[in-house]
Amino acid sequence: MHLLVDTPAPCWRHTGVAQRLVEKLLHALGDPPVRLQLWNGQSVTTSRAPSLLTLRIANRSTLWRLIADPDMQFGEAYTDGRIEVVAGDLAQGLAATFRHAATNAAAPGLQARWARARALMRRNTLRGSRRNIHAHYDLGNEFYRLWLDPTMSYTCAYFESESMTLMEAQVAKMDHVCRKLRLRAGEEVIEAGCGWGGLALHMAAKYGARVRAFNISAEQIAYARAAARAAGLTAMVEFIQDDYRNISGSADAFASIGMLEHVGIGNYTRLGRIIRRSLRAGGRALVHTVARDAPEPLNRWMERYIFPGACPPSLAQMMKVFEPAGLSVLDAENLRLHYARTAGCWLAAFENSRDQVARMFDERFVRMWRMYLAGTQAAFLSGDLQLFQVLVAPGRSNEVPLTRGHIYSAGPD
Amino acid sequence: MHLLVDTPAPCWRHTGVAQRLVEKLLHALGDPPVRLQLWNGQSVTTSRAPSLLTLRIANRSTLWRLIADPDMQFGEAYTDGRIEVVAGDLAQGLAATFRHAATNAAAPGLQARWARARALMRRNTLRGSRRNIHAHYDLGNEFYRLWLDPTMSYTCAYFESESMTLMEAQVAKMDHVCRKLRLRAGEEVIEAGCGWGGLALHMAAKYGARVRAFNISAEQIAYARAAARAAGLTAMVEFIQDDYRNISGSADAFASIGMLEHVGIGNYTRLGRIIRRSLRAGGRALVHTVARDAPEPLNRWMERYIFPGACPPSLAQMMKVFEPAGLSVLDAENLRLHYARTAGCWLAAFENSRDQVARMFDERFVRMWRMYLAGTQAAFLSGDLQLFQVLVAPGRSNEVPLTRGHIYSAGPD
Repeated sequence: MHLLVDTPAPCWRHTGVAQRLVEKLLHALGDPPVRLQLWNGQSVTTSRAPSLLTLRIANRSTLWRLIADPDMQFGEAYTDGRIEVVAGDLAQGLAATFRHAATNAAAPGLQARWARARALMRRNTLRGSRRNIHAHYDLGNEFYRLWLDPTMSYTCAYFESESMTLMEAQVAKMDHVCRKLRLRAGEEVIEAGCGWGGLALHMAAKYGARVRAFNISAEQIAYARAAARAAGLTAMVEFIQDDYRNISGSADAFASIGMLEHVGIGNYTRLGRIIRRSLRAGGRALVHTVARDAPEPLNRWMERYIFPGACPPSLAQMMKVFEPAGLSVLDAENLRLHYARTAGCWLAAFENSRDQVARMFDERFVRMWRMYLAGTQAAFLSGDLQLFQVLVAPGRSNEVPLTRGHIYSAGPD
Repeated sequence: MHLLVDTPAPCWRHTGVAQRLVEKLLHALGDPPVRLQLWNGQSVTTSRAPSLLTLRIANRSTLWRLIADPDMQFGEAYTDGRIEVVAGDLAQGLAATFRHAATNAAAPGLQARWARARALMRRNTLRGSRRNIHAHYDLGNEFYRLWLDPTMSYTCAYFESESMTLMEAQVAKMDHVCRKLRLRAGEEVIEAGCGWGGLALHMAAKYGARVRAFNISAEQIAYARAAARAAGLTAMVEFIQDDYRNISGSADAFASIGMLEHVGIGNYTRLGRIIRRSLRAGGRALVHTVARDAPEPLNRWMERYIFPGACPPSLAQMMKVFEPAGLSVLDAENLRLHYARTAGCWLAAFENSRDQVARMFDERFVRMWRMYLAGTQAAFLSGDLQLFQVLVAPGRSNEVPLTRGHIYSAGPD
């Protein structure tokens, strides 16, 4: 253990125990380049690398709680203001911590206990998708408008070139999806989980497709319908406030962008049957989701305060959607680093609007949401989270492109 | 059941039972566009579509055995000459039969019994990989030279454009793999299961990579070493006659083309650990394998006579290689129809050399091998088999390309 302790404080005796616990905590986390400052000004790090982040812990009880259950308590303490950033960047510091915690094998005691606790598959608490979706997506369109791009896309963008703005990258993502689906004019699309409707409207306006788009968020559906009217696309796009489990009819293409995280692994086989029965001969489907390299539940704080009922699947878990349904995977792409950049853009825009957010909600909400966005950026940067786009077709269909060259040629194919 | 029976034979009474059994058999197979001709000339089909294939069954006992266990007995009877093609194309007829058997829900009795038998996961009979590999790959380089392309590539080609010859498509496959791996001059590669050495030599000659290539087939290694000497590449490429389980050292890239089929699912986690520990920081690995849309063992005749110990995994099963090892999937591509075309090229070249093959072996071998190649083409055409290329990197590595555009730009990147 490389132990570097500044001891500016006079009351050494009283903080001796606390200091040693902080050392243990940092060591168990793999000695990340992070410095923790105690309530008495004493500051501790166990890394010889320059600190990317210095955090101030307000009091003794916050430290106890952090040691007992860091996954949950870090987010709670930050939200309460009991942990504050003194110096450095929250997202970069978290990313380094996530990376250290997973690669360093030091201090098996505490770390292993936390790892076991993290790995313990919690029962998916979907006490009604409506309630879960309402909690996050119905916070108000005005709030989301403050920090999302003008297309109101709330999923991973695709930075096809380095110089793209977030909005350009969100449009590029829509085109990336449409090219993978080989969407053609006059074709019909079913979209499951359509957010504020950006992709459905893009498919109609740019590709001439007719779209039936489903979503159970009342706020989002209202916004999407207004957007369709404003764009004169109501004849092409129908926004339906209903659950994916109630999708009927058939289509040439099926798209689901950022819904699978909320479906719950126990419902994957059912979703697969719905996709399969929705596809006509020659049909294609694309599922875009936050995911993992290996099965692990969502961070508990995130699941409790931000995305109730959500769980990012591993690729093997995702196959429960496709394999029993007789759907053949044509193409899978990991866009992890695109999501890190997307979340970074959201965080920057959020900080620019923090005063407005504080007026809409309160300071506690500002801190909670900053923690969520910075944690998200960090998780994608560190490799804790992945983003998969998986393209499938009915297993017997030979109406599939021979190569993926069309995805990378200019313009819609 | 659509029943269309020609009855040119006089002895109707004696064949009444046989005829009804043939009808049952065809119906259980989903009424494929196939006509079966009995030993007395009587011919039966249960499809209204024009027959793609007419097969003559030599005698009563062949029919009984076919009904009892079609997966195994069809190949055996064809090899023995007890089933012969009277008209039509074997591969196309088999592809139609595979497609019908899987999509038509008719006649649950026999079909369900066979499906259960097929689905019953047999214990992988790898009684020593050396023995299994020897049985197929050590049949003699002279034999394989008769019908493989000049690069001696015995895996799925990549027909980047429609007009490519098989050899051009095999070279395109090598470039496709090298571009996915972003192979650069001076980098080191480990190849697990290198066949006759074509990819290893290509990586050295075209990309300036240094390759250590492993294979347990004595005949293939001898051929590959001679090819390296002839190309003046012995300083760049080392061919090692050893099992993948004995790979040591590290590299920038790891490639395994057409080996996973022979590894056995029970060894996947071990293979994943070997790939992970072989990769340096910033390393990439590509695994290319025959696969399935859902778990199912290899056809029993194929496993017994052609590829002992082999099993094509589903994508979820493949993830047993990557998920426990901390490897992150960057890209997965399905090249199924490319394999159908590759096998078609092999079959055509094999037919052109059938007299030489008969002199090397015998007529029975010619029929067995034709059955294997036609059955392979049919399985990829019908969707019974898939071909996946999966690109991975260590889960924490951010040295990964943001997009796949480089794969589709001209020339090595």
